[in-house]
Formats: sequence, C-alpha cells, structure tokens
Amino acid sequence: MAKIKIYTAGIVVIGNEVLSGRTQDANVKYLGERLNLLGIRLMEVRIIPDVETAIIGAVRDMSRNLDYVFTTGGIGPTHDDITAASIARAFGVNLVRDPEAERLVRSNYAAPEEVTPARLKMADVPKGATLLRNPISKAPGFQLKNVYVLPGIPRIMQAIFEGFCHELFGGEPIKTREITAFLPEGILSGKFEEIQSRFPGADLGSYPFVRDGHFGTVLVLRHTNQEIVDALAKEVRLMIRSLGSAPFED
Amino acid sequence: MAKIKIYTAGIVVIGNEVLSGRTQDANVKYLGERLNLLGIRLMEVRIIPDVETAIIGAVRDMSRNLDYVFTTGGIGPTHDDITAASIARAFGVNLVRDPEAERLVRSNYAAPEEVTPARLKMADVPKGATLLRNPISKAPGFQLKNVYVLPGIPRIMQAIFEGFCHELFGGEPIKTREITAFLPEGILSGKFEEIQSRFPGADLGSYPFVRDGHFGTVLVLRHTNQEIVDALAKEVRLMIRSLGSAPFED
Repeated sequence: MAKIKIYTAGIVVIGNEVLSGRTQDANVKYLGERLNLLGIRLMEVRIIPDVETAIIGAVRDMSRNLDYVFTTGGIGPTHDDITAASIARAFGVNLVRDPEAERLVRSNYAAPEEVTPARLKMADVPKGATLLRNPISKAPGFQLKNVYVLPGIPRIMQAIFEGFCHELFGGEPIKTREITAFLPEGILSGKFEEIQSRFPGADLGSYPFVRDGHFGTVLVLRHTNQEIVDALAKEVRLMIRSLGSAPFED
Repeated sequence: MAKIKIYTAGIVVIGNEVLSGRTQDANVKYLGERLNLLGIRLMEVRIIPDVETAIIGAVRDMSRNLDYVFTTGGIGPTHDDITAASIARAFGVNLVRDPEAERLVRSNYAAPEEVTPARLKMADVPKGATLLRNPISKAPGFQLKNVYVLPGIPRIMQAIFEGFCHELFGGEPIKTREITAFLPEGILSGKFEEIQSRFPGADLGSYPFVRDGHFGTVLVLRHTNQEIVDALAKEVRLMIRSLGSAPFED
C-alpha cells in the first residue's frame, strides 16, 4: 500500500462557560465525527478561557503543528468576544472592518437602529481573512491561513462548517466496524492486543459497558482500507466465539 | 480586599474515542462545576489521543504551570491503556506493581482465574504514587506530585474524585448569580461592558438563547465576594429595566 499523507486537525474551544462547567460542549463531538468522515484526523482539542494570551498561544501552536485548526466561540457582540482580535494578533495582522461582513451583519436586522456598535464588531476580521458564510444569523466566520474561526452556538457553527468543509483537502476517509461482545473487557484484552500487534496500522479500541447488570465490551475497528477492517472483523468475531460468547454487530 | 492566591487546575482527557466523536465527554463538565465550587479555577483542558508522547507533553506542561492536574481515561486493562506508564515516564520514575493496588484489584473478582494479567496491569502505578480509592470497581486511581490520575468512565471517575477532593487546597469558592432578560445580546452588550469595566475583578459572561421564538440572554455574574456579586446583580437588574425589559432570576 502506498504511503499516504495523513491530514491532521486541532480544535480550540474558547469559552469560560465550558471551563466553569456551566455549558456542556457539543462542538468537539460534532467536529470529531465530521472530520473523521472527511479523512482528517483530529489530534488535539484545547479548551481555554476568553483570554488573549491563551488564544494566541493555542492557535499559534496548533497552526504550526497541524494541517487545520478550528476555533469555536468568542465571535459574538459582547465584551468577552475577543477571538477575532486575538487571531489577528497571533498572526501579526490588523483587525479591520470588512465591508462584505458589515453588509451581512446589517442584513440580519430589519431596522437600522438595531445595528448597534456591539453588533457591528462582528464585521471585524483579521486583514487577509476569507469570510465563511453563515446561513442562519448572517454574521460570518472567517478563515486565516489554516485557521477556521467559528461561533460557539452549535447550530450556527454546524451550518457554517457544512458550507466549506467539502473544500478541505482530506485523506482517505476512515472505515469503521463495531463489534459487541457480552464479555468484560479484561477477558478480551489479551487476545485483542495480539490482533492489534498483527495489524499495527489499524486503530483498535475497546469500550466497556454495563447493560441490565451484564458486562459487555464494544470493540471498534478502524482503518482507511475497508478490506483490512473486514479482515479485522473476521478475526475479532472468531476471537469472541473462542471465548465462548457471541459477537453482535449492527 | 487582601490579595488571595488563586488556585488553578487543568484537565487532560486521554482518549481516541472522544477525538473521533464516538464518545461525548462528560467529565470536563463535572470537574469544571466541582472545581468551581471548591474555589479552584479550571484554566485549560486538553483532549489528546492514547499516545505516549502526547500524554507526557500535556502532563508535564500543565504540571509545571498549574496547581492541580487531573487526567481522565486510559487506566483500564487493555493494550491502549497507557496512562500509568506514560505518567511514570513523564516524571522519570519506574512503573511498579503496588501490593495494595493488587489486593484491591483482586478483591473485585470472585474467582482467582478471573484475575487475568491484563486486569493486574491496573495495579501498576508510578513509583512514589499515592493510591486514590475507587469504591465502585476497586482498581484505584493514583496521585503523583500534583497530578491526579482518574479513569474515563464518568460514574467511577466521580466516585474517586469525591473521595479526595475535599483535601485539595482551594481558594475561596466562587459565588454566582444568573439574571435572564428577554433582550438580544447585542442590545445588552454595550451597557454590560460598561459594568464590567467598573468591576475588573469580576467574571461577567453573557449567553444568548432563543426560546419560543424570542431572543433572550442569560447574564452570569461571578466573584469570590458575595457582596460584590449582589452589587453587580443590582446594577444588572437596573440596566435591564432601563432598556424597557424585566429581569428574571431563579
């Protein structure tokens, strides 16, 4: 098999409300699943406060080391929405009012007096950024170099992401099969590890659960090559039978 | 007001299943809320894969810069459970089988043959670590220096955390009030920012929502001093009334 480049990504979740436990983040799960399907491997997530030095540090670090960086949160109209200014500073460019972004922000309000200075802040982006279309509330996200800046509200974040994600250059999508056994993880792990050692390029995971008082384990098999995933599934099913149990698969 | 030390914490979530979007992490929200109540400020979360270099890098970084570090995940019996070995390497100590941990792990199984080598791996901890009691499934977490190593399964993670968290030395607990207005965030933000500027030590957040087609905003007011929170609440309620609306508070 030819060596393929693996495209990598990171997410920076910007928001005190996630760190304080007030809000349950939902964006990591959404982006993790979507990137996986696009063949891009999510390598790291950092959840950081609305603090300029923290945003600059995380974004610079990830932008250098990964192919794509996605930030969520901190691009609304309030005083703690400092993401755009921080990204501009991270890359040493000015924050400028973008005329097209201003037109879009204004288009979301019926009366001119509703377009407050605070709301117009949402039209300020780093110089050189490309706008990312927001079909719901108009105020756009933006892209600067390999950094994609998105809002924190899941429905809007998703709508913006779906508008550009198919233009991202990914690798081969990851193929997955999940096989469930009503056996505890500790019983499966020796043989499962042996299978992993024979397929070093595959990503095998095991996730224990308890259902109606019975211990069970979901074995997740991942590889970019469907034939390898199918060969792994065959081995895992045999393994489960050899331990006196039955494999289940949706 | 006397200057008080602010105790800080970080969380390292170890797990490919969170990065792939397969699993929704619940531990950050739990620990974020609990630390907040204990007066410890959660400064950063990193979600990283089950990869030794990633674990060593994140743990060393946070252990140096923060008062407390909590890791979740990767201390079970399977081949991808490499957290204990990685933490040992991060601090340059050996991984050793702890007799008390071995006794605890064995106590969870009725028959000796159930105590597989894979399960006994859960009794291996870095030399010098202190065990953290697990009242549910016995296999303990552990503490090494300022790093607390916990499992990923929320119910067990929580049970272990509740067993030691009251011994953590925190600061003053954070007091919070939340005031809701049926006004869009963009209308509130100018005056809200002005209030923030007069209370630089307070942590003010605003969180927009849509309910039954009406835009609203929750304003969250936080400070270690209850009197300051109450003064802020008074100002915010006045501000909402001055904008022609009514404040709501649970």
